[in-house]
Amino acid sequence: MRRGGFNRQMRRPAHPPMPEGGYPESLEKKTAHIPPLEHGNIRIIPLGGVEEIGKNMTAIEIGNDIIVIDAGMFFSNESTPGIDYVIPNTRYLEERKDKIRALIITHGHLDHIGGVPIVLSRIGNPPVYSRNLSILLMQKRQSEFPHLPPLNAIVVEKDDAIKLGNLKIRFWGVTHTIPDAMGIIVETPYGDIVTPGDYKLDQVDGVVSESEEKEYEQFDKRNILLLMTDSTNIENEGFSLAESKVHQGIENILRRETNNRIFMAAFASSITRLIKVVEIAESLGKKIVIEGRSMKTNLDIAIQAGLLKPKKDSIIPIDQIDNYPPNRILVLVTGAQGEEFGYLNRLANKSVKNLSLKKGDRIILSSSIVPGNERQVQAMKDGLSRQGVKIISFRTPGEEFVHATGHGNKEDIRWLHKKMKERFFIPIHGHHYHLELHKELAIECGVAEENIIVPDNGSIIDIIDEGKKIVMRKEKAPSAPMIVDGFSVGDEQQVVIRDRQMLATDGMFVVVAMIDQRTGLLRKSPDIISRGFVYLKESQDLLRHTRTLIKKTVEDAYKRERPGDFESIKNIVSETVAKYLLQKTGKRPLVIPVVLSV
Amino acid sequence: MRRGGFNRQMRRPAHPPMPEGGYPESLEKKTAHIPPLEHGNIRIIPLGGVEEIGKNMTAIEIGNDIIVIDAGMFFSNESTPGIDYVIPNTRYLEERKDKIRALIITHGHLDHIGGVPIVLSRIGNPPVYSRNLSILLMQKRQSEFPHLPPLNAIVVEKDDAIKLGNLKIRFWGVTHTIPDAMGIIVETPYGDIVTPGDYKLDQVDGVVSESEEKEYEQFDKRNILLLMTDSTNIENEGFSLAESKVHQGIENILRRETNNRIFMAAFASSITRLIKVVEIAESLGKKIVIEGRSMKTNLDIAIQAGLLKPKKDSIIPIDQIDNYPPNRILVLVTGAQGEEFGYLNRLANKSVKNLSLKKGDRIILSSSIVPGNERQVQAMKDGLSRQGVKIISFRTPGEEFVHATGHGNKEDIRWLHKKMKERFFIPIHGHHYHLELHKELAIECGVAEENIIVPDNGSIIDIIDEGKKIVMRKEKAPSAPMIVDGFSVGDEQQVVIRDRQMLATDGMFVVVAMIDQRTGLLRKSPDIISRGFVYLKESQDLLRHTRTLIKKTVEDAYKRERPGDFESIKNIVSETVAKYLLQKTGKRPLVIPVVLSV
Repeated sequence: MRRGGFNRQMRRPAHPPMPEGGYPESLEKKTAHIPPLEHGNIRIIPLGGVEEIGKNMTAIEIGNDIIVIDAGMFFSNESTPGIDYVIPNTRYLEERKDKIRALIITHGHLDHIGGVPIVLSRIGNPPVYSRNLSILLMQKRQSEFPHLPPLNAIVVEKDDAIKLGNLKIRFWGVTHTIPDAMGIIVETPYGDIVTPGDYKLDQVDGVVSESEEKEYEQFDKRNILLLMTDSTNIENEGFSLAESKVHQGIENILRRETNNRIFMAAFASSITRLIKVVEIAESLGKKIVIEGRSMKTNLDIAIQAGLLKPKKDSIIPIDQIDNYPPNRILVLVTGAQGEEFGYLNRLANKSVKNLSLKKGDRIILSSSIVPGNERQVQAMKDGLSRQGVKIISFRTPGEEFVHATGHGNKEDIRWLHKKMKERFFIPIHGHHYHLELHKELAIECGVAEENIIVPDNGSIIDIIDEGKKIVMRKEKAPSAPMIVDGFSVGDEQQVVIRDRQMLATDGMFVVVAMIDQRTGLLRKSPDIISRGFVYLKESQDLLRHTRTLIKKTVEDAYKRERPGDFESIKNIVSETVAKYLLQKTGKRPLVIPVVLSV
Repeated sequence: MRRGGFNRQMRRPAHPPMPEGGYPESLEKKTAHIPPLEHGNIRIIPLGGVEEIGKNMTAIEIGNDIIVIDAGMFFSNESTPGIDYVIPNTRYLEERKDKIRALIITHGHLDHIGGVPIVLSRIGNPPVYSRNLSILLMQKRQSEFPHLPPLNAIVVEKDDAIKLGNLKIRFWGVTHTIPDAMGIIVETPYGDIVTPGDYKLDQVDGVVSESEEKEYEQFDKRNILLLMTDSTNIENEGFSLAESKVHQGIENILRRETNNRIFMAAFASSITRLIKVVEIAESLGKKIVIEGRSMKTNLDIAIQAGLLKPKKDSIIPIDQIDNYPPNRILVLVTGAQGEEFGYLNRLANKSVKNLSLKKGDRIILSSSIVPGNERQVQAMKDGLSRQGVKIISFRTPGEEFVHATGHGNKEDIRWLHKKMKERFFIPIHGHHYHLELHKELAIECGVAEENIIVPDNGSIIDIIDEGKKIVMRKEKAPSAPMIVDGFSVGDEQQVVIRDRQMLATDGMFVVVAMIDQRTGLLRKSPDIISRGFVYLKESQDLLRHTRTLIKKTVEDAYKRERPGDFESIKNIVSETVAKYLLQKTGKRPLVIPVVLSV
C-alpha cells in the first residue's frame, strides 16, 4: 500500500472507542432504488478504491450470498482537514446484512484492512477469512476498538478451498511487500471470478521465478470469467524492480559503511523487507534497534507469526545503543514520509529525548514518496542534513537500490492478463486515469472492449445472460466516503469539512451585540471574537471602526425591522460587516453575529 | 521557476491595492544588533531562497553601496493556509535605504520578480535594472498595484556595464526557460562576484553550443572571487534535457496527431517554449487559441517585446475554434499543475462556458509536477480521462519529450564551477539539503571547504582580510517570511496562521452566556455557535447536554468567584466545555466563551 500523512495520530488515540452500543444506524433506506439481483446473474460492486489509491473494498453478490473482499482506509489529506481517516461506504451492505457470508482479506495492509473494525460493526459482524499474518494484524487493530466485539477470524492457507453459503472459494499465494498475501478465486457456474489483491511478480529482470510460475499454473487450466485487479503502477514501464535487488542493495550498504551508524526508515508495512533487513544485519553481526510505534508493533507481530526469528540479543533497546561501536548499529525507524510524529522526522527536529543524530550517520530512506508528501519529506531531509548525516534515498544518484514498489508495473500486469485470459475485466484499485490506462492495456492483451468495465465507487455491475454479458447499471450504491472524525463516523460530513476549509482560509469573526429593548440602543460596545483572520495586535483601528459600524447597523436595523425579528437583524449585520471587512482587508472571514436583547 | 498552487487567485484580485500612503513602517529597529560592515570588507546576505525553492533575494553590500539581486515570491501551501503569497524579509534593507543603489533582476519569473512591487515600496523605491522582457513583465505586475508609484526601470543589454555608486557591474546572457535571462558580475578590488541567476546550459547531450561557450568565454580571463548560484537540480544526474529536444518532441506530436485537436498546458512562464510552439504550429498551418489569464498576458508581452511575431490570423479567438477542422487546432492553456482555476482544470471539471473537450482530443502536459501538487494533478487527469481525451505527459511511457527543466542538472552545475574557478562559493537557491549537496559538488570541483558557506535566509556573510577569507557572522538579519494576506503584509502573522490550522483541524465552538446579576442565573439558555466541529444536525443531544453543562458551570462559577471576575469565569467555562467535548467527540475545537452580565 501507499500511505498518506499520519499527522494526526499522536494528538489523540488513533482509534477512539466506539460509542457504547455501536454507531447508530440510519433508518432511512438508501439503496431501495437498486433493483435486486436477478436469478442467475452475478453482481460486482466496487465500494472503494476505484477513485483513489486506498480504502479498497469490493462486494460480490451471487444468488443469496454476498462476500466482501477487503475493507481498507486512507488517511486525511488537505482536502479533508482535521479528519482521522476515510473508509468505504457501507450502506449497500448494511441493508443486505443477512446475505453477507464473509469478509475475505487479501493481505494485511491498512488500505485493505484499515476499515475492518468499523465496517464489520456496520454490516453485522460476519466472519473474517485470511491468512495468518493478516489475521494477527487485524486482531491487533481490532484491539484498539475495545467497544467492539473481537473478530470472528478464520485462518486459511493459500491452497485452501472453503464453502460460504452456496459459494465455493479458493485461494493462492501472491507476492507483495508483506508475507501471507493471497489471491481469491470465487467459482461460479460460468467460470471463476479472480482477484490477486495487491501483487507484483516474483521475478528478476522479467524472468518469473519457478515458485511464482507454480502458484499461477492452475490458471492455465481454469476458465476465468472475470478478473478484478490493481492498476496502481499502470503508468510504470517494464517489470517492477525485484525486491531481491533491494535486499542486495541494502546489504551492500550495510557492508560498505563500516564507520558509521546506519538508520533505515521504511513503511512499517513493508514487513517482507524489514524481516530480511533484520536477518542481513544479524548475519553481519550488527545490533538492531527498532523505533516508532508501528515499526515495533509490526515486527512484534512478525515474530509472533514465526516469520521473524531473531537471535537472542540481536535486537537491543535504544538505551543500549551507545554500548556498541557505531558500525555495529542499525536502527529501523518509522517516518520515511516525513510524518509529523514519525520517528525519523522527530530525529530531524531534534525532538527525540533519548537519541540524537551524529555527524556521519547514514540514513537510508527505504521508500518512495507518497504523492502529496513531497514537501514534508523535503523539510525532513533539510532537518536531517543540518545534522551532518548522509541521506541515501531511492533517487540518490549512483546509489544502491533501496526501495522497490510492491505493485506490479505494466509488464507484470500484462503477464497476469496473458495468464488469466479472462472474459471480463474490472480494474478495482487506482485513480480513474489509471483504470482507463489499464483498460487500454487489457484490450491490447485481448480482452474485448465491451467486456471491460471502468467503475466508480458504488458502481453496480451485473454479469447477465448466463455469463455472456457484463453491464454497468445506471443505479449506483451510495459511495460518499465514510469519514472517521474523532468518534463520529458518517457519510454526511461534507458540510463540516467545507466549514473547516473556509475557516482555514480567512478565519472567523464573531460579533456579539446586546440590545436594550427599552432604548433600542446597545447596552455596551459590541464584543468581537476573531481568530485566523488578521493579526489583531496590528488591527486595533480596524476593530474600533468595525465596532462603531456594528453598533450603528444593529440600532438602525432594530428600529427599522419588525420588533423581535432578530434573524433579519443578524442577516443585515452579517452582510454589512462582511462587506466592510472585505473592503478593508481583502479577506472574507466567516462572520457570525450574535444579537441578544435584554 | 517552479510554481506552487494558484488556488486563491480567482477568489479576489490577485494583487490588492496597497493601503493609501503605503504600508506602515515599523518604528522599532530590528537590525541594530548587526555590526556595520567594516571598511574593505564585502557583505552578502541571502534574504530569501535558501530555505525554499522560491522568493529569491540576495543583497550585496560593499563600502557605502548596497545592491539587491532579485525579489521573488512563492505561493501559499498547506503550511500557510489562506494566504496569498510570501516574499523575503526586507527589514535589513528597510533600515539601510540610503545605501541601496539598485534592484537588479536576473529574469522575469515570479520567484525572482513576484516580490518587486512590495519590496520596492519598503526599501525606498530604488531604480530597477534588467533586460527588456523582464522589465515589461515587472511593469505589468506593478500595474496591479495601482497605489504604488510606477517602476523606475532601466533596461540594460546583456553586454552592458553600469556604475552604481562606486560599484562597476556587468552582465552576460544565460539560458533559461524565458528569454532575456542574464547573469550579474559585480567587480570588486579582490575579484568578481558572479551570479548567473537561474540557468541551464544550452547544450545537447553534454555538448555546449558555440554561442553559450562564447557567453561564458570571458570568465576564462576573469578572477572570480565569489560565485553564487542555483542548487535546484543538484540531485539530478547528467546534463539537463535540452529544450531543443522538447521543441522537436512537440513538433513530432503536432505532425503525428492529424485527426484531433491538440491542447497544450504549460507554465505561462515557459515563454521560450511557448514562442517556439506558436512558431511550430504556424509552420504546420494550425490555428492557435490562447486561454488562461497568465498565458494570454505573457504571450501578449512576448509580442510587445518583439520576441514573438505571429502571422496575421494565426492566433484566433476561442469562439472561432469550430470554424476549423480539429487537426488545425492547437490550444495553449494554463493549468498544467491542476490549479483550481487553471484553464485545463476548469476543462477537466467541465466548468468552461464556451469550450468543452471532445473524445479524442490530445492533451499535452508540458511541465513537470511541482512537488506538493501531485494530488491535484491526479484529480485533474481523472477528470480529463473521463472525457475520453488522451493525455501525454512528461512521464507517458514511450512518448516524445514534452518537458525539460529550466535549471541545470548536476553536470551543468559542474561545468559552471569548472568555468568559474571561484575562490568562494555560496549556493543561493534551494532547500537546505540541496545546498549541502551542492557544497559537496563544489568541493569535488576544487573549491576549498572553508571557502564555501551554506547560508540560511538572513545569514550575514562577510568577505574579510582583503578578499582572503569568508565568514558567516553569528548575528542574523530578520528572515521571517513576509506574508501577503489580503491587504496585509508582515512578518508577524504566525499566530494567525496557527489559528487557521487549528480551526481547520477541529473547528470552533463559541458559547454565549448572559448572567442576570440580580439572580446570578442565566437569563436564557446559552447560545452555541459552532462550525467545522461536528455535524450539528446529528449532534442535537450533544448540544443540549453542553448547554446544560454551560449553564451549571457559569452559575456555579459566578457564585464562587469574585463578583465581576469574568476572566476567571470564562476560563472555567472554556476548560470545562473543552474537556467535555473532547471526551464526547474525540475532538478539540477552539472553545471561546462570551460571558455577559445584565
